[in-house]
Amino acid sequence: MHRPPLTLARWGSFHVGGREVRVEGQPPREVLFTPGSAPALLDPNGTYLVGGMYAQAMEPAPKRGAAPLMLWHGGGLTGACWETTPDGREGWQHFFLRQGWEVVVSDAVERGRSGWMRIPEETCGVPVTLTLENPWERFRIGPGTPQDGRVFEGQQFPADMASWCNFIRGCVPRFTTTDDLTLEAYGALLDRVGPSVVVAHSQGGFFAWRAAQEWPDRVRALVLVEPASTGLAEKVAALAGIPVLMIYGDYIEGDARWPAIRARGLAFADAVRGAGGHVDAVDLPARGIRGNSHMIQMDRNSDDVATLVQDWLVARGLWS
Amino acid sequence: MHRPPLTLARWGSFHVGGREVRVEGQPPREVLFTPGSAPALLDPNGTYLVGGMYAQAMEPAPKRGAAPLMLWHGGGLTGACWETTPDGREGWQHFFLRQGWEVVVSDAVERGRSGWMRIPEETCGVPVTLTLENPWERFRIGPGTPQDGRVFEGQQFPADMASWCNFIRGCVPRFTTTDDLTLEAYGALLDRVGPSVVVAHSQGGFFAWRAAQEWPDRVRALVLVEPASTGLAEKVAALAGIPVLMIYGDYIEGDARWPAIRARGLAFADAVRGAGGHVDAVDLPARGIRGNSHMIQMDRNSDDVATLVQDWLVARGLWS
Repeated sequence: MHRPPLTLARWGSFHVGGREVRVEGQPPREVLFTPGSAPALLDPNGTYLVGGMYAQAMEPAPKRGAAPLMLWHGGGLTGACWETTPDGREGWQHFFLRQGWEVVVSDAVERGRSGWMRIPEETCGVPVTLTLENPWERFRIGPGTPQDGRVFEGQQFPADMASWCNFIRGCVPRFTTTDDLTLEAYGALLDRVGPSVVVAHSQGGFFAWRAAQEWPDRVRALVLVEPASTGLAEKVAALAGIPVLMIYGDYIEGDARWPAIRARGLAFADAVRGAGGHVDAVDLPARGIRGNSHMIQMDRNSDDVATLVQDWLVARGLWS
Repeated sequence: MHRPPLTLARWGSFHVGGREVRVEGQPPREVLFTPGSAPALLDPNGTYLVGGMYAQAMEPAPKRGAAPLMLWHGGGLTGACWETTPDGREGWQHFFLRQGWEVVVSDAVERGRSGWMRIPEETCGVPVTLTLENPWERFRIGPGTPQDGRVFEGQQFPADMASWCNFIRGCVPRFTTTDDLTLEAYGALLDRVGPSVVVAHSQGGFFAWRAAQEWPDRVRALVLVEPASTGLAEKVAALAGIPVLMIYGDYIEGDARWPAIRARGLAFADAVRGAGGHVDAVDLPARGIRGNSHMIQMDRNSDDVATLVQDWLVARGLWS
């Protein structure tokens, strides 16, 4: 589909966060980085910067929106999951830029363009990698495998084999041991950019809840797309002043894990409301929006769901 | 510095390349991806897509340039090294977009936003990571360490400690065992985008020489910024129709490795000329452009060197 040009007043990237780790007493070794180059003596001792995070900030012209809007990706992915869908359409990064928001897309710690981690020393292990087959059922595309090609009725994910392979190529190794560093880095990002609307998907929702509880004055609103987890029960009061939108897709009832994850999410939403907070939980099928997988921002109706998010932000007074 | 807005007619990302690897006979294990989520049974058996590559293509409006211009980064880095300099200036991605080129920035295989690799199965080992101290001398910033803070006289790299840490945060783990996959992926990228001008830095220069020799009809020109290696001697004839610009910075004479690397590069340039090719090798200090480190696209005079590249491309008839 043809879309009009997009004008950027500013655009650039930066890295935030990270800790210094000192290493001593290790033997140096010779490394030939490139065939035909010259060997280098690599001294592994010294200072490492671990746990930094890459962020790309784009400011459209003209600009609208009361604050920057951040897009925090889920586990095993990078910020690229917001950029272009597996079937080549514009993603939510484009959608919200076109509404006039300053959009900040980040790659979580140890993924994508974020920085150094020694493996396994800082990561406490080797990363989890996924087969082509694994996310097919887990992300609620269909039963069986992508090679079978069966999808749930009305499926909105672009599940042809070419698009599925594009999606899998965009997945990256993922550690399950770096949550503390990642939360710290999101804190550093909010500190640098300033109070922002945080739109988070899946594992990103876990960090978004926690970040909002740690630094409530830095979060203007939370939009949680199938959050994989909740905030801390003992800190619900911190969320009283932050409007929250939670969105769940289709095919959850028949899934092995999502009924429990959603039930815990909705119970946490009740707890936030009990502490005086405002939470809207949207079950897309109940609104007549059917066929959404776990990868809602990549589904063929991704612009429709983004419009729902945009309307909610307008209703909260965050865009005019 | 204030710069005018930039209008993009199109912009998006995609993944190319990669091989299928089948795994069988491994035991499944339970993984809790996110605290407070639900455990998932992870079956490591199945099909992996290894060796894919992320690329981001931006097309400015209005567009100029006879072909797309690709930016291929060096070892231990990602495409972000072209986006914004460590001291926050616009990088070469912006520079060439502002000239009207369609610019394609990629993250080499197993780095940045490129996809899955099982560690160590597909990568044949754990990656090389660098200390804060290591590249200071190796990239010809100054003697000693960044903590000492001594830089070579006239140094153009933004070597204050804050900028240096920004640079290091942008470095990523790097395998020395994935060259074949990486070359394949660059081939897939050239195949998808079509004949392009390839601007490559350091290790990227190794891949650029080899890619031009493998797929000469897909490369309109090579711009090699301190290439870490050369092409294959037995295939110099393949380069006869591709104009080449080689650029070297300052402080090479006193370095442990760069006199040899440059000498081999210049000898290879002679061989290409001997086969009928056109190679211009620019020694920046000899042109009166002094103080450049190995990270020329990040140095404070990065726009001056980019202008030299642009003028050369104009002289080759590739921009009008």
